[in-house]
Amino acid sequence: MLKSVQIAAEKIRKLEVQGARNVAITAVRAIETLAKEMKVKNKKDFLKGLSNAKDILFSSRETEPLMRNAIRWIIIQVEKSDITNTKDLVSLVSLASQKFLKELEYSKEKIAEIGTKRIRNNSVIFTHCHSSTITYLLKKATQKGKSLELICTETRPLFQGRKTVKEMLKLGIKTTLIVDSAARFFMNKADLVLVGADAITSEGNVINKIGTSMIALVAKEARTPFYVVSELLKFDPATMYGDYEKIEERSPKEIWKKHPKGLIIRNPAFDVTRRDYIHGIMCEEGIISPHSIIEVVHRKYSWVFK
Amino acid sequence: MLKSVQIAAEKIRKLEVQGARNVAITAVRAIETLAKEMKVKNKKDFLKGLSNAKDILFSSRETEPLMRNAIRWIIIQVEKSDITNTKDLVSLVSLASQKFLKELEYSKEKIAEIGTKRIRNNSVIFTHCHSSTITYLLKKATQKGKSLELICTETRPLFQGRKTVKEMLKLGIKTTLIVDSAARFFMNKADLVLVGADAITSEGNVINKIGTSMIALVAKEARTPFYVVSELLKFDPATMYGDYEKIEERSPKEIWKKHPKGLIIRNPAFDVTRRDYIHGIMCEEGIISPHSIIEVVHRKYSWVFK
Amino acid sequence: MLKSVQIAAEKIRKLEVQGARNVAITAVRAIETLAKEMKVKNKKDFLKGLSNAKDILFSSRETEPLMRNAIRWIIIQVEKSDITNTKDLVSLVSLASQKFLKELEYSKEKIAEIGTKRIRNNSVIFTHCHSSTITYLLKKATQKGKSLELICTETRPLFQGRKTVKEMLKLGIKTTLIVDSAARFFMNKADLVLVGADAITSEGNVINKIGTSMIALVAKEARTPFYVVSELLKFDPATMYGDYEKIEERSPKEIWKKHPKGLIIRNPAFDVTRRDYIHGIMCEEGIISPHSIIEVVHRKYSWVFK
Amino acid sequence: MLKSVQIAAEKIRKLEVQGARNVAITAVRAIETLAKEMKVKNKKDFLKGLSNAKDILFSSRETEPLMRNAIRWIIIQVEKSDITNTKDLVSLVSLASQKFLKELEYSKEKIAEIGTKRIRNNSVIFTHCHSSTITYLLKKATQKGKSLELICTETRPLFQGRKTVKEMLKLGIKTTLIVDSAARFFMNKADLVLVGADAITSEGNVINKIGTSMIALVAKEARTPFYVVSELLKFDPATMYGDYEKIEERSPKEIWKKHPKGLIIRNPAFDVTRRDYIHGIMCEEGIISPHSIIEVVHRKYSWVFK
Amino acid sequence: MLKSVQIAAEKIRKLEVQGARNVAITAVRAIETLAKEMKVKNKKDFLKGLSNAKDILFSSRETEPLMRNAIRWIIIQVEKSDITNTKDLVSLVSLASQKFLKELEYSKEKIAEIGTKRIRNNSVIFTHCHSSTITYLLKKATQKGKSLELICTETRPLFQGRKTVKEMLKLGIKTTLIVDSAARFFMNKADLVLVGADAITSEGNVINKIGTSMIALVAKEARTPFYVVSELLKFDPATMYGDYEKIEERSPKEIWKKHPKGLIIRNPAFDVTRRDYIHGIMCEEGIISPHSIIEVVHRKYSWVFK
Amino acid sequence: MLKSVQIAAEKIRKLEVQGARNVAITAVRAIETLAKEMKVKNKKDFLKGLSNAKDILFSSRETEPLMRNAIRWIIIQVEKSDITNTKDLVSLVSLASQKFLKELEYSKEKIAEIGTKRIRNNSVIFTHCHSSTITYLLKKATQKGKSLELICTETRPLFQGRKTVKEMLKLGIKTTLIVDSAARFFMNKADLVLVGADAITSEGNVINKIGTSMIALVAKEARTPFYVVSELLKFDPATMYGDYEKIEERSPKEIWKKHPKGLIIRNPAFDVTRRDYIHGIMCEEGIISPHSIIEVVHRKYSWVFK
Repeated sequence: MLKSVQIAAEKIRKLEVQGARNVAITAVRAIETLAKEMKVKNKKDFLKGLSNAKDILFSSRETEPLMRNAIRWIIIQVEKSDITNTKDLVSLVSLASQKFLKELEYSKEKIAEIGTKRIRNNSVIFTHCHSSTITYLLKKATQKGKSLELICTETRPLFQGRKTVKEMLKLGIKTTLIVDSAARFFMNKADLVLVGADAITSEGNVINKIGTSMIALVAKEARTPFYVVSELLKFDPATMYGDYEKIEERSPKEIWKKHPKGLIIRNPAFDVTRRDYIHGIMCEEGIISPHSIIEVVHRKYSWVFK
Repeated sequence: MLKSVQIAAEKIRKLEVQGARNVAITAVRAIETLAKEMKVKNKKDFLKGLSNAKDILFSSRETEPLMRNAIRWIIIQVEKSDITNTKDLVSLVSLASQKFLKELEYSKEKIAEIGTKRIRNNSVIFTHCHSSTITYLLKKATQKGKSLELICTETRPLFQGRKTVKEMLKLGIKTTLIVDSAARFFMNKADLVLVGADAITSEGNVINKIGTSMIALVAKEARTPFYVVSELLKFDPATMYGDYEKIEERSPKEIWKKHPKGLIIRNPAFDVTRRDYIHGIMCEEGIISPHSIIEVVHRKYSWVFK
Repeated sequence: MLKSVQIAAEKIRKLEVQGARNVAITAVRAIETLAKEMKVKNKKDFLKGLSNAKDILFSSRETEPLMRNAIRWIIIQVEKSDITNTKDLVSLVSLASQKFLKELEYSKEKIAEIGTKRIRNNSVIFTHCHSSTITYLLKKATQKGKSLELICTETRPLFQGRKTVKEMLKLGIKTTLIVDSAARFFMNKADLVLVGADAITSEGNVINKIGTSMIALVAKEARTPFYVVSELLKFDPATMYGDYEKIEERSPKEIWKKHPKGLIIRNPAFDVTRRDYIHGIMCEEGIISPHSIIEVVHRKYSWVFK
Repeated sequence: MLKSVQIAAEKIRKLEVQGARNVAITAVRAIETLAKEMKVKNKKDFLKGLSNAKDILFSSRETEPLMRNAIRWIIIQVEKSDITNTKDLVSLVSLASQKFLKELEYSKEKIAEIGTKRIRNNSVIFTHCHSSTITYLLKKATQKGKSLELICTETRPLFQGRKTVKEMLKLGIKTTLIVDSAARFFMNKADLVLVGADAITSEGNVINKIGTSMIALVAKEARTPFYVVSELLKFDPATMYGDYEKIEERSPKEIWKKHPKGLIIRNPAFDVTRRDYIHGIMCEEGIISPHSIIEVVHRKYSWVFK
Repeated sequence: MLKSVQIAAEKIRKLEVQGARNVAITAVRAIETLAKEMKVKNKKDFLKGLSNAKDILFSSRETEPLMRNAIRWIIIQVEKSDITNTKDLVSLVSLASQKFLKELEYSKEKIAEIGTKRIRNNSVIFTHCHSSTITYLLKKATQKGKSLELICTETRPLFQGRKTVKEMLKLGIKTTLIVDSAARFFMNKADLVLVGADAITSEGNVINKIGTSMIALVAKEARTPFYVVSELLKFDPATMYGDYEKIEERSPKEIWKKHPKGLIIRNPAFDVTRRDYIHGIMCEEGIISPHSIIEVVHRKYSWVFK
Repeated sequence: MLKSVQIAAEKIRKLEVQGARNVAITAVRAIETLAKEMKVKNKKDFLKGLSNAKDILFSSRETEPLMRNAIRWIIIQVEKSDITNTKDLVSLVSLASQKFLKELEYSKEKIAEIGTKRIRNNSVIFTHCHSSTITYLLKKATQKGKSLELICTETRPLFQGRKTVKEMLKLGIKTTLIVDSAARFFMNKADLVLVGADAITSEGNVINKIGTSMIALVAKEARTPFYVVSELLKFDPATMYGDYEKIEERSPKEIWKKHPKGLIIRNPAFDVTRRDYIHGIMCEEGIISPHSIIEVVHRKYSWVFK
């Protein structure tokens, strides 16, 4: 019965689905399918099914706050609804799922619109890794007539920077690729740094691809504005209550396939950029100070804390 | 007649000889051979020959202050000598060459001795790229009974960090390899940073492998002592008179073999670490403040400025 | 029909009316007059008229968030009211205008009260340019028995510092005038820096007279508390959605009347002081951290975001 | 009639009761007793009595925001209640008192739970002075299986650090005591700094035992996370309106019993740690950025501002 | 007899002669003239006369290290010479004077040559006030084919920046003038800051036109290299022995001609830029770290310390 | 035969002699006495005796560079002398000892003279611990008519600050005592920080009483000049060659006499202040940048490196 959910979880675990946004979409759709396939008699069992699905999906990766918040929200819709008829509950889940995905789409558009305004004409943008929200933003900015240039790191070990530069070249944007450790060498040439986020903590810190915090340090030193581009729902409520955002450590093979025996290879996938290095978070609510993240989430999505 | 010199220069140009120390040794030996092979009648022509050799070797790479200082020194020995007999001049060059190489060897030993004292027992050393002076130092420290652990970056694009970790593993040193952009993630675990130098400027700044200046910034932020390990003769007198130490830019292929058309790849081989990030330079003269480099070189090697 | 509005807009454009507060008062009164003079049949046309007035006044200067927020608020009162009778709408606009101006007056009093408490007896205040809110605050503090001393920059190019020092001398306050670039020389003598604001962005940054951000930097270096004294309604909601607060660039003649041909003179009227340099914003709501500005405005004046 | 209150106030004044938490508890109990002992005829007189008690207790120490907020809250419960019968009002005060104390207890538990999660296994905690909330947190963390080590300053002049280390030794925690001025010497060995708070200002600054702000500076320099552990109700609303949190200055005898005549001894009990040095405040609401303190208090305890 | 010296001193006092270089030249010529005009019998009286001249010239301005060092040097030539014949001593003074001025000229050329190399093509230079050494350097750089752009402050109160921009416009250099307090606004556009020096202290600090230290602070923040362009003989040996370099305070009229009664106007002519803000001093000896100034002066001009 | 030396060493070991200066004097006198008492036949044995004395005295404390340099210097005088007659060697040692002590006295006077000039009238000096060179300097400054005020820390654990304040009170200087951790609280009131030195390293760092480096950090933050007052011969040549200046760790009893069992008490006597926090070293040679220490010592006392 939970097969569609298990398949989705597996895909997420094996990184066949990548990017916080895609992971969330996959999970939402799996929940929607599950709701349809579940043959249960009452709301209690319906909720039980959803709860099981939640457990399976939550355990697919250490942290994926956007996916987790998505699932949380859909379940809350069911819980707070007066509907008891299971058939209607299936429709409700379907509607909720659609609404969530639509909102996600809206956030992307809104962020692109905000970012476009924030990019001055003829400016040089610096980025790290690959973020679909950022590449969409740059596409929109270019379409709106903003002339811009991009400097992108290759982003070891998985070279996601290459994905970014390929997309940019297709848009005809002048693009420069550098090794990660050349960031300081080139920072004085940049007018603006844009990076994505995997998670945002209650203190206002941002978890993103390993190396982001070094780029933030370098940007601060060069007085180059540093912005995080992210949906608000990347906020992880667990950090509120003391949990560290877990830093996933990935296979040494990603760094060196046939490494010598005895060598320790450490491969953390993310690092933490402290709020004081971040000029602002560009989110669907506007450009906000990371220091006020809890209150903004409370105002917009208070259900997150439930 | 200048064939041996031309071959040496070619090897240096093509990076068949690598590392400031090896480049200097190769050049010195080529000069020694040339002296023997030159069939000239008088000191004037002998000096002319050396001068031609100097021009060829100097042009083999943008900057190689150690090699340049080596050649300068040998020629000065000839110039200031009273000898006029060409046969005796050949011997003189031979003696001078041997002396220079011996001094270089002595410097390495002295630096290893100093460094060994400076490493506290059971400490974690952080390094970047590969420096034969540093690996020798760590070997000596281990032999002297210092227990230590190494964290080394992989050092894109040419992965010289792999060379470093292989040598360390052979010595039985606990060694961890990380991607370059994880330096900040791991810096709080390090007790000491050691890096090499390609050149030292008159202001006390150090030119070294791309990424060094970022590691310096990260070390400062974490209050981890950052030392440069280098022979004093890496000092480049041209910087005194306004010349920028040229930053060699290497082939984009090193970063991405089959990169998309239209993509700009920037591949500077070095960056500049400002003196204020450097706790000290460990050199044959002892541990010195980089701010006093000119005067130390004046006291020890005043001929450099001629 | 829009004549009174056009006259007001013209006065604002030509700087016959100066200071955010005075500009707002002028605009509010013009709207009030317009409402009385408009001869329209229904609410729809009434609102159309107000909207036209808004467009004219908004275009009189690049940014004047206080004025813009004032106009926004009055129009919202009309929109959300159930009144449809145009005569009553005129009264409504009049009442709203009076209320807004009264609130503005209250803010000034409240800020003066807060600032008075925050000034320690026998302290030296440093300020830049001229702010009527600050001079009122200092007047009140003196009247309440606080003994204080003022250091003020001359504030090139228009010498508004002279206006400030004249007002202070009338109050019998010991006052020192310096050139702008002597700020760092004198900063260690100051106990407190107070500056005004032209606009506050969603990130918590403050736009104020050119030079303010340098004084902030200097104050931080000397560990001298730096406060912004401003009504909350200087908050500019457009910055939320990505718009840069426009930095007005004024005539070169202000800097050099008969300057040589070919010389470029750049004369930005304002600069941006980042939130991290600001100890607090003294506003009608109390002393707040600039980082929380969006949420404070949401709580107090949520209509601003409409 | 106000005897129990006067006795409580006297105990607080003479420091027979110490620690913000104990002071609050003592005051709440005195209010409860007073309510029972007051023989008044109507609600007006009842409130008059409470108000007198408030004045007496408030004047017992310069600032004790937790106590003040406790008393404020109880009186608000009476004011807003529809009850007029004095007997029932006595019960109401009693209930409110119990509720407040229970909430205080809950906060302590919640903070300990959050803190426990935030402490990584095998980490070294640095603290200053004595905070019952912190010692409780460390006890809980140890009970939950977290292995930790403590470095504590002796905390001149009253050596409260000795109290902390005694409690820790009883729990079997490895504990190191140092003089206050050795904080920088040992900071690189610490993974986390935890300090308490006496008061929190509207700007997000924290008032705590003298020396705290130096430790914060040293922690920042060493990139060691610095957290304040405190109930939200240590927030002092008076700071909002410009009042400086008063820094109590205590007897010179505490520093030097028989000091030479003519010597000035300054003995401020507290100092101010600016928000920018604080990674987060661990409070009953979770881990929050100090920059957002006003809005968090508004959301949770809006009555504080009344 | 000392008339020529007194006239020179008077011109210097009244600022009829301006700029450290011109002041030194005037003093040297006055000494030369005096030597010729003195009618004395023996070397002792000759030296007495020079010593009197020295006293008069030294007292003409608070500090003018270049002039003082010039006079010191000439007198030392006389003292250490074996010549006793007064006629020959006149020739000696004449020769020494010519030599000093020639050396000064050589320094200027050497500095221009060094600076030209240090300026990258197509770069933007930022400067403050007027320095004849810098304008000469920029002229030479332009003649050598370096394309550059200049941003210059107006430099209140005496607008020396206008002098600088006029000279630049004549050379056809693209030049922008800004008010002093706009330095931070424009700093990110600059590639290099060049300022002159009035004096250099034994600690390596530089005394220059008021505002220089603020520009240094701003340059550091933006990671823009900041160089001092100065002859080594601006070094003031008195600072070695504890004397503060006196900061001349000039007439309030320079700032505000008809200022209100009671107003204090402070008009320090110079401020101190600490060595840590200075990337290097471009002097006749090359580009040096300011931290090593004493030893460089000892090596080159050890007579300064006599 | 070595009895006088052994007694001296014992006194030094047991801290019966305190302060680098007194320790050096005691050792010099012991050497002088030894020379007189030794009954040896030839220079070789004479030198042997001195060498033994050196070993005994060197081992009396971990590091005492001033004493060590003193002994080194005396022995060098013997070594380099042509005298072979043992009787004359006794005289030579006596003369050398007297000369050394006289030079030490001269240094003290010179430093006091320099420091007096550097103290502005009516300024507030901040100091830590007790330094006889500093108290002498302040005495001289007061005698020369400088009006000054002193803030001094108590300096735990041995309260040497009390010694300092007692001496100051005798001189009639207005003196304030604070606990060590109040340094940051009072730093903004200070115009100048003066501290002593136990040793100076080749990098230019200063070893002094525990807490000095925290005061340096706090002074930097407040932009208060921080000077080290010390004889140049506190320079420790061993640091040149990699040796860490050993940080003596003293008895836990100094911190807590009857401490609980199981408690670890760490009591390092000194800490390291990095050169970048030091405005200058006031020494007999003048005020110098710590960065140039090696070269200054080379110029003045090159024998130190032998």
